[in-house]
Amino acid sequence: MAGSTFGNKFQITTWGESHGKALGVVIDGCPAGLPLTEADIQQYLNRRRPGFSLFSTPRKESDTVEILSGIFEGKTTGTPISMLVKNTSQHSGDYSEIASYYRPGHADYTYDEKYGFRDYRGGGRSSGRETIGRVAAGAIAAKLLGMLGISFTTYVASVGTVKINRAHFDASYIAKNDLNMPDPDSYQAASELLSDVMADNDSIGSSVECIIHGMPAGIGEPVFDKLDASLAKAIMSIGAVKAVEIGDGTEVSENRGSYDNDRFIMQDGRITKKSNHAGGILGGISDGSDILLKAHFKATPSIASRQQTVNREKENIEVSIKGRHDPIIGPRAVVVVEAMAALAILDLLIDNMSSRVDSLIEFYKK
Amino acid sequence: MAGSTFGNKFQITTWGESHGKALGVVIDGCPAGLPLTEADIQQYLNRRRPGFSLFSTPRKESDTVEILSGIFEGKTTGTPISMLVKNTSQHSGDYSEIASYYRPGHADYTYDEKYGFRDYRGGGRSSGRETIGRVAAGAIAAKLLGMLGISFTTYVASVGTVKINRAHFDASYIAKNDLNMPDPDSYQAASELLSDVMADNDSIGSSVECIIHGMPAGIGEPVFDKLDASLAKAIMSIGAVKAVEIGDGTEVSENRGSYDNDRFIMQDGRITKKSNHAGGILGGISDGSDILLKAHFKATPSIASRQQTVNREKENIEVSIKGRHDPIIGPRAVVVVEAMAALAILDLLIDNMSSRVDSLIEFYKK
Amino acid sequence: MAGSTFGNKFQITTWGESHGKALGVVIDGCPAGLPLTEADIQQYLNRRRPGFSLFSTPRKESDTVEILSGIFEGKTTGTPISMLVKNTSQHSGDYSEIASYYRPGHADYTYDEKYGFRDYRGGGRSSGRETIGRVAAGAIAAKLLGMLGISFTTYVASVGTVKINRAHFDASYIAKNDLNMPDPDSYQAASELLSDVMADNDSIGSSVECIIHGMPAGIGEPVFDKLDASLAKAIMSIGAVKAVEIGDGTEVSENRGSYDNDRFIMQDGRITKKSNHAGGILGGISDGSDILLKAHFKATPSIASRQQTVNREKENIEVSIKGRHDPIIGPRAVVVVEAMAALAILDLLIDNMSSRVDSLIEFYKK
Amino acid sequence: MAGSTFGNKFQITTWGESHGKALGVVIDGCPAGLPLTEADIQQYLNRRRPGFSLFSTPRKESDTVEILSGIFEGKTTGTPISMLVKNTSQHSGDYSEIASYYRPGHADYTYDEKYGFRDYRGGGRSSGRETIGRVAAGAIAAKLLGMLGISFTTYVASVGTVKINRAHFDASYIAKNDLNMPDPDSYQAASELLSDVMADNDSIGSSVECIIHGMPAGIGEPVFDKLDASLAKAIMSIGAVKAVEIGDGTEVSENRGSYDNDRFIMQDGRITKKSNHAGGILGGISDGSDILLKAHFKATPSIASRQQTVNREKENIEVSIKGRHDPIIGPRAVVVVEAMAALAILDLLIDNMSSRVDSLIEFYKK
Repeated sequence: MAGSTFGNKFQITTWGESHGKALGVVIDGCPAGLPLTEADIQQYLNRRRPGFSLFSTPRKESDTVEILSGIFEGKTTGTPISMLVKNTSQHSGDYSEIASYYRPGHADYTYDEKYGFRDYRGGGRSSGRETIGRVAAGAIAAKLLGMLGISFTTYVASVGTVKINRAHFDASYIAKNDLNMPDPDSYQAASELLSDVMADNDSIGSSVECIIHGMPAGIGEPVFDKLDASLAKAIMSIGAVKAVEIGDGTEVSENRGSYDNDRFIMQDGRITKKSNHAGGILGGISDGSDILLKAHFKATPSIASRQQTVNREKENIEVSIKGRHDPIIGPRAVVVVEAMAALAILDLLIDNMSSRVDSLIEFYKK
Repeated sequence: MAGSTFGNKFQITTWGESHGKALGVVIDGCPAGLPLTEADIQQYLNRRRPGFSLFSTPRKESDTVEILSGIFEGKTTGTPISMLVKNTSQHSGDYSEIASYYRPGHADYTYDEKYGFRDYRGGGRSSGRETIGRVAAGAIAAKLLGMLGISFTTYVASVGTVKINRAHFDASYIAKNDLNMPDPDSYQAASELLSDVMADNDSIGSSVECIIHGMPAGIGEPVFDKLDASLAKAIMSIGAVKAVEIGDGTEVSENRGSYDNDRFIMQDGRITKKSNHAGGILGGISDGSDILLKAHFKATPSIASRQQTVNREKENIEVSIKGRHDPIIGPRAVVVVEAMAALAILDLLIDNMSSRVDSLIEFYKK
Repeated sequence: MAGSTFGNKFQITTWGESHGKALGVVIDGCPAGLPLTEADIQQYLNRRRPGFSLFSTPRKESDTVEILSGIFEGKTTGTPISMLVKNTSQHSGDYSEIASYYRPGHADYTYDEKYGFRDYRGGGRSSGRETIGRVAAGAIAAKLLGMLGISFTTYVASVGTVKINRAHFDASYIAKNDLNMPDPDSYQAASELLSDVMADNDSIGSSVECIIHGMPAGIGEPVFDKLDASLAKAIMSIGAVKAVEIGDGTEVSENRGSYDNDRFIMQDGRITKKSNHAGGILGGISDGSDILLKAHFKATPSIASRQQTVNREKENIEVSIKGRHDPIIGPRAVVVVEAMAALAILDLLIDNMSSRVDSLIEFYKK
Repeated sequence: MAGSTFGNKFQITTWGESHGKALGVVIDGCPAGLPLTEADIQQYLNRRRPGFSLFSTPRKESDTVEILSGIFEGKTTGTPISMLVKNTSQHSGDYSEIASYYRPGHADYTYDEKYGFRDYRGGGRSSGRETIGRVAAGAIAAKLLGMLGISFTTYVASVGTVKINRAHFDASYIAKNDLNMPDPDSYQAASELLSDVMADNDSIGSSVECIIHGMPAGIGEPVFDKLDASLAKAIMSIGAVKAVEIGDGTEVSENRGSYDNDRFIMQDGRITKKSNHAGGILGGISDGSDILLKAHFKATPSIASRQQTVNREKENIEVSIKGRHDPIIGPRAVVVVEAMAALAILDLLIDNMSSRVDSLIEFYKK
C-alpha cells in the first residue's frame, strides 16, 4: 500500500495535488442501486469550501464536482465511481519561494527525505486540498448510512482554550456559524480569540467531536480491525490531527473501573446502557449506543510571523510564510472528520454481513 | 479482513482464545537471514507474564513459546514463522457463570450481538491473553529494528491521577519495578493508590508512553497510511485503550502555531529540530526526531464490587465478578504497546524501500 | 504480501515445511455458527494422504489434524481457526545430499536466489506437503459451500497421453481407484503406462478437472477479480501446475463465435444455456451453469534416472534423486484442486453479499 | 475488494464504462523520480487503438490520454498518478436495443444477476474499452521495467487454426502487420481466414504469446503469490481469455519428468538451463530464463449472424447483433497482455526488495 487507498470493501483511492490540474477519488465497492447525483456530493463538499468566513482563507474556490463513471440512470452501478474537482484558483507564483526551504510544522522536509524531491506548490499532496477526495467519497458513504438509519452530529468542540458549553448544546446552531460550534456563547468567545490570534499573525489549535447516531450493535472486527482502531486510523490520517479519543478518551486513565464500567439495563424491552463512558464501543465492537469520538487539531502551521528554519542548502534562515491561509483548521475539518468516520463505519458494516453462517445461508437461499 | 491480521509486508495473523488449547501467531513476510531463537521471543513474552507482581493476577502462567516453522539452522528462511503458546493454567470452571450474563465494560454483549454466541471462557478471543500473539511477533520486529538502530523506551506514565515525575526520569528504573514506571517517587505513590483501589474491590486506569529512538526520516506513507495513523490503529487495537496521542497530543488543540511549529536548525552538519511538539512526525512521515506516543488505558473492567447488569434472558440483575484479575492494565501492557509500535514501524520501513526509482534500480543492478 | 495468504474475506494463511515440526493453517473470516469437528477436516486430508497406492510414495504419513482455536461447543466462533498437522515420518537424512546441488525441475535454485539459502530438507516450503494447509482450510470451505448447495466433482482427466473416456464417465468410480479417474478403461490404461514409467525410473504428467455444481449466477467481480481470474490464480498456485483452462479452454482460440457463444434459453421457467463452452462464466461472473476448470500438472521432478545439473560450487555434475517420490502428481492433487476452487469461490460468494444496496438495507433492517 | 484494483505495491485502480464520459486509472505506489510524459502512455495506448486495420472495428477513437496528477517537473512524485481518456466516438443509440435482451457470450445476463441492472451501453464496464486503464498503467510499468533491463516480445500466436511458423519467427515483423503476427506466411493465411469469417458474419478465436526477457532470478513469492499464479490471474482477468499456459503449458501433462526437467548448466560463469520447458519459473519463482506465457482468446461474442437468446421478459427470441465490432480479439489484445504481464511482474519485483534481512540493513545503512 502506498497510502492513498482507504477501506477494504467500500474502498476509496484519492489522488491530486494542491496545484495540479485536478483532485479526485475513485470508489470501488459501492453497492449497486444507490440513487446518486452530483448535488449529493456537492452539498457535502461545500461544507469544506473556503472563502466564506472571516476565519478562513479569502481564496474563492468553487470546488465543483464531476462524476465520470459508475452511475447509470441516476443510480450507482456497483462499478467504480470516479469523481473529479478541477483546480481553478491556484496561484503557483505564491509558492515559488517555498521550494528553497523547509516550512516549520509542514511536510516539506519529510517529503524531500522520502521521495528525494517534492511538488512544492501549495504543499502538493500534503495540502489540505487533498481532503476533497475524502469528502466526496464520504458524501456517498454518509448517504448510504442514512438509508440504514445512521446519522452524524459533528462540530468544533474547542478553539484554543475556549470550550463549548455542553449545557447549551444546540445541534441546529452548528451549521449557522462559521466556526461550526454548537452554542452561541462559545462561538462568541472563540471569535474574539481568533481575532486576537490573527492580529498576531498567528494561528490556533482546535478540536472536533463527532457523534454517530443509530449504530447497530455488533459492528467492528476483533483484535486488529476493532471499530475504535479503524476510526482512530481514519481520523489520525487527517492532516494536523495529533490525538484521537473514543468515549471518555484520555480521562479513562484517571478513573476507576467502578466508575468507567457502563451498566447494562433493560429499557423498553431492549438492552441498553445507563452511561456511555465507552463511547459506544466494547471490545472493539459497537454496543448500540452512540459512538463518540474526538480529534485534536494542531494550529495551522502556515503563519506570517517570523520563524527560524533551514533551507535546501542546509543554511539556517528566517522566514515568514506568505499566502492565504486559514488561522484555524477545525471548522473546515468538521466535514472531513465526518467523512472519514462514515467511510470507516460503512466498511465495517459491509464486512459484518458475513459474520454468521446463517446470514450467508439466508442470503443465498433467496 | 476479519480482524486478526496486521500489517501489509511484515504481516501477522494471531489466533487463540483465553481458555482454548493454545494461542499463537503466524508471521508472513519476515525477511530471510535473521538469527532467531525461542529465547528472543521468550524474553519479550516474559515482560507481559502475570503472577510476578503484587498488582497483577496471582495466576502463574509460564507462557512458553514454541517456534514451529520458518527457522532453519538458526535463521529465518523468509517463509512463515508459526509460533504457539499452550494454555496451561486455565480454570474453565471459574467462568461458567459468566455465560449467562453480560459483564459491564466487557465485550460479552457485543460478541453475542455480532456472532450470535460467544466463547465465554475467560473472554475467549477478547481476553487480554490474545496479546500473546502480538508480543511474540513484536519481539521479532523489535529485534530486526534493533539491527537498523531503532530502539524503544516504554513505560507507565500514570496510574490514576498519579503521574510520573519527568524531572527524575530514569529509564533504567522501568524494568526494576513491577509497575514499569520510570521514577521511584511516582512508583511509590502509585503503589499506595493501587493498594487502596484493591482494598475497595475496584480497579484503576493508567497510561503508557512509548519513545522510539533512531527513527530515520522519510518513513510513513502520505494520506491514509501516515505513520501516526498507522501507529494510532496499532495502539488503539489493544484492548482497553480509549485514546492515542502523538507528540503533544491533546494539548495541540489549545496551543498556537507560533508555539507548536518545531523550528528546523542545522546541528552537527545535519538538519534537526529545536523542539519536538510534533512527536517526530510531519505530514504523516517521520522527521528523524524521536517518535513520541501515548496510550490511555481504562481500568480493568473485571471488578469484584457489585454491579448492575442484564442477563441473556434480558433480566436486570446484580453481579460481582469473581476470578483472578489484574487491578490495572498498563504495567503488563507496556510490552504490548511496544510490540504494536514495532510492528507498525517495521511494516512502513519495508514499504519505504520502494519509494524511489533509484532505489529500485540500485537494488536490481546488483 | 509474502505469498502465504489467500483470500480477502475467508482468508487463509498456511505455514510449515516438509521436515519442520508441523504444518498448519490459520483461517480468519470463517462465519460463526458452522458445526465443525476434526473429522470434517480429516476426511478431506485423507484424500491427499500418501502410502495407500501403488502409484504413490510408500511413506506412511497419518497426517492427523488438530484444531487449536476458533471452535466452541462444536461450532465455529467467527474468530481464527488454527489447525496443525505434526510431521512424524520425515527422514531428514534422506535429503542431506540435496543441500549441495540444484535438483532439475525443483525450486532449489530459485529459493537460493531469492532468500540466499534454503531449508533443503525435502524441499522445505516448496514441498508438496505445503498443500496440507490448503486442504485443511478447503475442507471447511467445501463444507460451508455444501450448505449453500454447491458441490464438486474432481478427478484425474489424463495420465500422460491416456485420456478419460467421457462416454463412460462414472462419478462414483473416482473414489474407487487409486488414480481418481472416472472410468475403468482409462484407469486400466493409465495403470499400465505408470508401470512402464516407474520401471524407467521416470515420472509422468497428468491433468485434473473440477466441475462445480449448484453455483448461483452473479458471483465474481468485474475486471481484475473475475471468477475465472481468481480460480486461475488459485489453481496455478498449486505446485507443478503449468496451465489452467476454463470451459473449452485452449480450444476457444480455434473456434468461431457462432460456435462458442452459448445460446440462452428458457427452461422450466428459468434462464439457462443450451451449451456450456464458457464453463459457467461470462464476463468473469458466474452464469448459473456448472463451472468447468482444468489444471495441467507436470511430471514429478524427482526422478531416479541420472540428470545433469549444477552444484552450489557452480560445477557441472550428474545426479540421481533418491528418496520416496510419487511418479505422478495428479491423483493426490485432486483434493488440492478441489480445495483451492472451494476457497476461491467461497471468498467471492462472501464478497457478493454487498453487491447491492437493497441487500445491505435488508440485512440491517432486521 | 470489488474487483477494479490490481497489485499490492504498484497498485492500479481502473474505472469507466464504454459509453460514460471517460475511462481512466489511478496508480498508487509508483516510485518517485521516473521521467514520464503523456507521450510515453500514448504510444502504448495507440497499440490497442481500433480503426486502423481491416480486421478491427471501423470506429475511429483517438483515445488521447491526459495525466492529472502525480507528475511534477517531468518526473513521478511517488504520489498517485491519475490518468484519463475521454470517450468521444460513442453512439449510445447503437445499443438501445441491447437493453432488452441478453447477448449470447456476453456479460449482460451475469451483470443483471449480480447488480440487478446494468449499464447496457456498449457493455458498460464489461466492454473491451475497460482495458484502456490497464494499458495506460502498463505503459508506466513497462517503462520502469525497461530501466531494470526487462523487456517484452508479445504477438498473436494463432488465428483460429492458423498457427505461426516458429522457424520464420521475426520479432521486427510484429509491429508491421495489422494482426501483430511474427511471420509473413502465417499473417497471409490468417488474413484469408479472417476474410472468410467476416464474410460469414462470424468471428474467430486467437492466441497471444508473451516472452519476458531479462528477468532476474528469485522473483515471485512462494505458495499463493507465485509468479505464475500472479501472471495467470493477471492474464485471465482480461475479457475473453479462457486459458493461460506457462512454458510448455498444457503439453506438460503428456510428458515425462526426464523430458520436462530443464537441466542446469554452467555457461559463461553463470548458472543457466539447457532448455526452458518451465517457462522461466520454478516453484513459482523466476529462474533467470525468459518467462513464456500464452493466453487463449475466444472469438468476439458480438456477431451479426442470427442467434437464439432470451430477453428480460424471459421470452425466447432471435437476435442479430448490430454495431461495429472486431471479428477477432487477439491483435488488439497484444498490448493488453503485455501490460498485465508488466504490472504483475513489477509488483513482485518491488515485493522482492524485502526478501532478505541484509537488503533491509543495507538500505537503511545509507
